[in-house]
Amino acid sequence: MIRRRVTVLGSTGSVGSSTLDLMEQAEATGTGAFEVEALTGGANIGRLAEQAQRWKPRLAVTADPARLNDLRDALAGTGIEVAAGEAAIVEAATRPSDWIMASIVGAAGLKSAWAAADTGAILALANKESLVCCGPALIERVGRAGGKLIPVDSEHSAIFQVFPADAPERVSKLVLTASGGPFRQVSRERMASATPEQAVAHPNWSMGAKISVDSATMANKGLEMIEAAYLFGMTEDRIDVVVHPESIIHSLVEYVDGSTLAQMGAPDMRTPIACALAWPERIAWPAPRLDLPALGRLTFEAPDVERFPALDLARQALKSGGAAPAVFNAANEVAAFAFLDRKLAFLNIAAVVAETLERATKAGMVFGSGDACGAALSVDAEARQMARSIIAGLANAA
Amino acid sequence: MIRRRVTVLGSTGSVGSSTLDLMEQAEATGTGAFEVEALTGGANIGRLAEQAQRWKPRLAVTADPARLNDLRDALAGTGIEVAAGEAAIVEAATRPSDWIMASIVGAAGLKSAWAAADTGAILALANKESLVCCGPALIERVGRAGGKLIPVDSEHSAIFQVFPADAPERVSKLVLTASGGPFRQVSRERMASATPEQAVAHPNWSMGAKISVDSATMANKGLEMIEAAYLFGMTEDRIDVVVHPESIIHSLVEYVDGSTLAQMGAPDMRTPIACALAWPERIAWPAPRLDLPALGRLTFEAPDVERFPALDLARQALKSGGAAPAVFNAANEVAAFAFLDRKLAFLNIAAVVAETLERATKAGMVFGSGDACGAALSVDAEARQMARSIIAGLANAA
Repeated sequence: MIRRRVTVLGSTGSVGSSTLDLMEQAEATGTGAFEVEALTGGANIGRLAEQAQRWKPRLAVTADPARLNDLRDALAGTGIEVAAGEAAIVEAATRPSDWIMASIVGAAGLKSAWAAADTGAILALANKESLVCCGPALIERVGRAGGKLIPVDSEHSAIFQVFPADAPERVSKLVLTASGGPFRQVSRERMASATPEQAVAHPNWSMGAKISVDSATMANKGLEMIEAAYLFGMTEDRIDVVVHPESIIHSLVEYVDGSTLAQMGAPDMRTPIACALAWPERIAWPAPRLDLPALGRLTFEAPDVERFPALDLARQALKSGGAAPAVFNAANEVAAFAFLDRKLAFLNIAAVVAETLERATKAGMVFGSGDACGAALSVDAEARQMARSIIAGLANAA
Repeated sequence: MIRRRVTVLGSTGSVGSSTLDLMEQAEATGTGAFEVEALTGGANIGRLAEQAQRWKPRLAVTADPARLNDLRDALAGTGIEVAAGEAAIVEAATRPSDWIMASIVGAAGLKSAWAAADTGAILALANKESLVCCGPALIERVGRAGGKLIPVDSEHSAIFQVFPADAPERVSKLVLTASGGPFRQVSRERMASATPEQAVAHPNWSMGAKISVDSATMANKGLEMIEAAYLFGMTEDRIDVVVHPESIIHSLVEYVDGSTLAQMGAPDMRTPIACALAWPERIAWPAPRLDLPALGRLTFEAPDVERFPALDLARQALKSGGAAPAVFNAANEVAAFAFLDRKLAFLNIAAVVAETLERATKAGMVFGSGDACGAALSVDAEARQMARSIIAGLANAA
């Protein structure tokens, strides 16, 4: 039975809502007991208020200052403190909790995750930016505060579950699995004319449009490679990517003695969330179970680096180190949205990333001094500007 | 770097020889340093003497008293003490070591494993009889002596590597994988006329004739189910068997939160031996590496309990408890050898096991009082006699 005082940053999103659902299910099976310190949500005041009424946090925060009064009205008489805006979310992240879920996406998520990292709590991290843009600094910050970082996406959760954190020298290689995305079997010629509608049709996971584009370019796997390198202290030459369309083996760790350990399961985000929620214990809940005979087969292939250049670009960024992974992330995000806005051809997403990385390198772009989070945000802004100008240049040339 | 004083019981067999090879390879990579207390081998004096000259044990024992002088001559001038016979092997097992490999097959293996269990050493167990026939008593004995039992076959090593020994309540199910053996796709009609030659042609592993017959009947998986139940404290309803012809996923552990952890690798006995040799560390050696894209696919199917009744018989024996698993093992061994001697039809192997289990239950066969190892050996002898008389009855009826 795990007992925890928790804070959920981004409680109204998919990961945050699943976290609260799992807490409820763990309490139903008697394997968990939770109190809530703070919930922070977006503009969906109805859902946030409902969650707050159920869990009675001390503090409920909406990201949208214009909705503060609505939240106050919805929670009138409950005694729950209410607040709004980015600073209030960052403040919520610093409140005393045993466990903090950081599941706010994007730059806003970075600031609150950074704040949470300093509390000494277990930090369940679903925000990718904070790892990709300032992973080494974030990990150091968590360690210095006496906390523990637990990754929440399926690949890193898989590795986390079979990785010997106290003896990384026992590991020879990490193997990240990739679904291969919607264009796995699509020729480069057809990829050239791919539409946003084709790119967001993901075979196994339902996810947002930008993440779906990342899956189509395999930039998501490039980002995950960067995250894995930071989380598990591996150089880029010791991280392989294997395409596994069924998304059942979520990733693998190869040991120096030839044993390979893997985590498997149905492709369901609740499984890694449940793992993070109870770590090092386990909660019981009616999870979808792995049924290998029903699946019949699992297949594997090497990724095609010609059609998916994002993988090598991420590897290069990792090798360059410093600000390069943050540049990769910023350029990729700008390019993916430009593609979704029909302002960039699909294959040019990687071209924009490559060009931004090259210009950033030539410009000697590095993290500035001072707070690592602030430095990462400034590199992020600069790289985005660079990527936008490259995209504009491509549009003018066309 | 793991440093250990080791004893290898059965050093001239396949598992024992591989153990010494791996020690050599670990020393070459600087991940292990070993001294040898005792080596015990069979009648292959040449190999035993060569091993003793290489590793300079304090004691070298041959199982064959008639070969003692040959061994003495071969090791003359080395200062290595020599001995011969079963009692000398049992005595070797009690010598002070950090780590003892028990890889002598059959009843002789049981006695020396039982002796080794009392020393407080890490006991790497390749002898199946000692677990199947007196598993609970053996495990208790190892625990009382402050030792640790590490299974050496691939399935249990896989489970061992991903099982939470300190918190078994986190596990919902064990899944043993099975190659399915040479008759996986053979009809019951053709199995009825199967010859020993057909039965010993195993698709993935090279092994002895009797073990190959066990693979063809899937009695091996029944025995492994019994071993797994004892090793990991699981009831028979929480152990599944899945047929996986490629033998790459060596077994799986399903947790209560829906995560399933697995150990994978090339089908090579040296991998589980290497794991046992260094546990909880890992040695580095040029192991065959898992290459999922090269494999392309892994397949799974439910076992056909009609064609492979040994699985349900093992489950029943486990459920009955007490001496029943020992009876299952004895009857199966007698029946498998009768089949190899062309004195029993293939499908009658399971029939003999079923009938022996039934008679033993009716006769109220239980472990006698006194030493658990001795009691298990006496049940073993009694059940063998019972199985032989059933086989004779079948021959007379034919």
